Amino acid sequence: MSRILLQVAYDGTSFSGYALQGDKRTVERCLNEALTQFTDTEVTVIGASRTDAGVHAYGNLAVFDTASPVPAERFARILDRFLPADLRVVRSCEVPADFHPRHTGAVKTYEYRIRNTAVPDPIADRYSYRYSYPLDPAQMREAAAYLVGEHDFTSFCNPETQSPTRVREITGCSLDMRISEKGDMRDPELILHISGKGFLYHQVRIITGTLLEVGRGLKKPGDIPQILAARDRRLAGFTAPPQGLFLIGYDLQGMI
Amino acid sequence: MSRILLQVAYDGTSFSGYALQGDKRTVERCLNEALTQFTDTEVTVIGASRTDAGVHAYGNLAVFDTASPVPAERFARILDRFLPADLRVVRSCEVPADFHPRHTGAVKTYEYRIRNTAVPDPIADRYSYRYSYPLDPAQMREAAAYLVGEHDFTSFCNPETQSPTRVREITGCSLDMRISEKGDMRDPELILHISGKGFLYHQVRIITGTLLEVGRGLKKPGDIPQILAARDRRLAGFTAPPQGLFLIGYDLQGMI
Repeated sequence: MSRILLQVAYDGTSFSGYALQGDKRTVERCLNEALTQFTDTEVTVIGASRTDAGVHAYGNLAVFDTASPVPAERFARILDRFLPADLRVVRSCEVPADFHPRHTGAVKTYEYRIRNTAVPDPIADRYSYRYSYPLDPAQMREAAAYLVGEHDFTSFCNPETQSPTRVREITGCSLDMRISEKGDMRDPELILHISGKGFLYHQVRIITGTLLEVGRGLKKPGDIPQILAARDRRLAGFTAPPQGLFLIGYDLQGMI
Repeated sequence: MSRILLQVAYDGTSFSGYALQGDKRTVERCLNEALTQFTDTEVTVIGASRTDAGVHAYGNLAVFDTASPVPAERFARILDRFLPADLRVVRSCEVPADFHPRHTGAVKTYEYRIRNTAVPDPIADRYSYRYSYPLDPAQMREAAAYLVGEHDFTSFCNPETQSPTRVREITGCSLDMRISEKGDMRDPELILHISGKGFLYHQVRIITGTLLEVGRGLKKPGDIPQILAARDRRLAGFTAPPQGLFLIGYDLQGMI
């Protein structure tokens, strides 16, 4: 048996999230079906990040074990034929039999894309959050700096979070500008980059919603330490919608 | 009665093209239904470009006549509630009663987006053509230059084109690079910009396919004048697929 690692990219719009969920169209279900069909053996993948419905990914991970003689690197392109167009295996490689995608200790990076405009765009609106209130990026950056480091993020996660501890370390949280695909300088995207080894349920989306409320002037950067200390979800901002969120990938350098 | 002009943007993936076509889900049909619903009167728009199934647009045009007292500028945002998410009216304004979107004489610009890589991307592949053969952009530019000007484009249109003449003027045809959204310098998009007052059926997609064959070395730039002169569709290249094509917009400066 060999263990194969897949780097998985998807347009989250039409998926009910990553993880198996009954009969729903999830990423994991499509991967299992494609691998079962190609290898002609029941395959169940083990995934890394359980992204929410509507969240996109360039670099989620999954592993599976197989006795197939097909070289590990070839699975990526072979699976093109068995997967729907909104889900692709970008690359595949063999890993040690004890490699577990949720226990690598690797840092992962999320991006949250914000279009600060009132003008709709049927393509960009599928992959970003259109927020039309004027934003002050300097205030948002100042607030973001307070979130970096190890904190109890109870205030910044969904109360239904299943986890024995709500302490997590954010290794990076920066707000960058990107000139839009259309090259229009008047319509830049604001991109929030957030990195860490692990995140709580809705954590990135609640951080984003809170920073947007800071950018809009409803909260001050200096409120963040108090919100963290209070461990009360009601004090943080709204949960930003899923379509702006991308799981960019895991830093597996030196591990595979 | 007032005549209202709409600038229309859509993700072409799930549309059977722009123009009415029986019961099919087309852009024109969705516009008629939304306007009819909102104004409570049967509305039929007059469109500008009849884009193919799968082709995207940021700036297609449509007009309609209405007795509604709603200010023309407000139609854009009101229609958000009556249109599907993949179709948006970017802006609306009043125009003279004799304004016809197909008879303005305005130059329009198309973009064709090419990703010169073998690596799939479920999001980018929805909005560009992935072409994995190595391409020589300098050869493609040399070939593009031969197409600028007034020519008989019989070789560069679908033989089913309904038009008394196949002479058209291309006012601009350039090939540019754009660093991809992911900011990866190794994976730039090649963008073909094509402008003119009018185009034949499949003309932009056949020009693109021909330039790709030049870029790949199957044809030479110097072949273009002979292909034009022969007026024979079989001599030009393949018809590039629709998902890479965007109708960027019309230059209406000074007209409205």
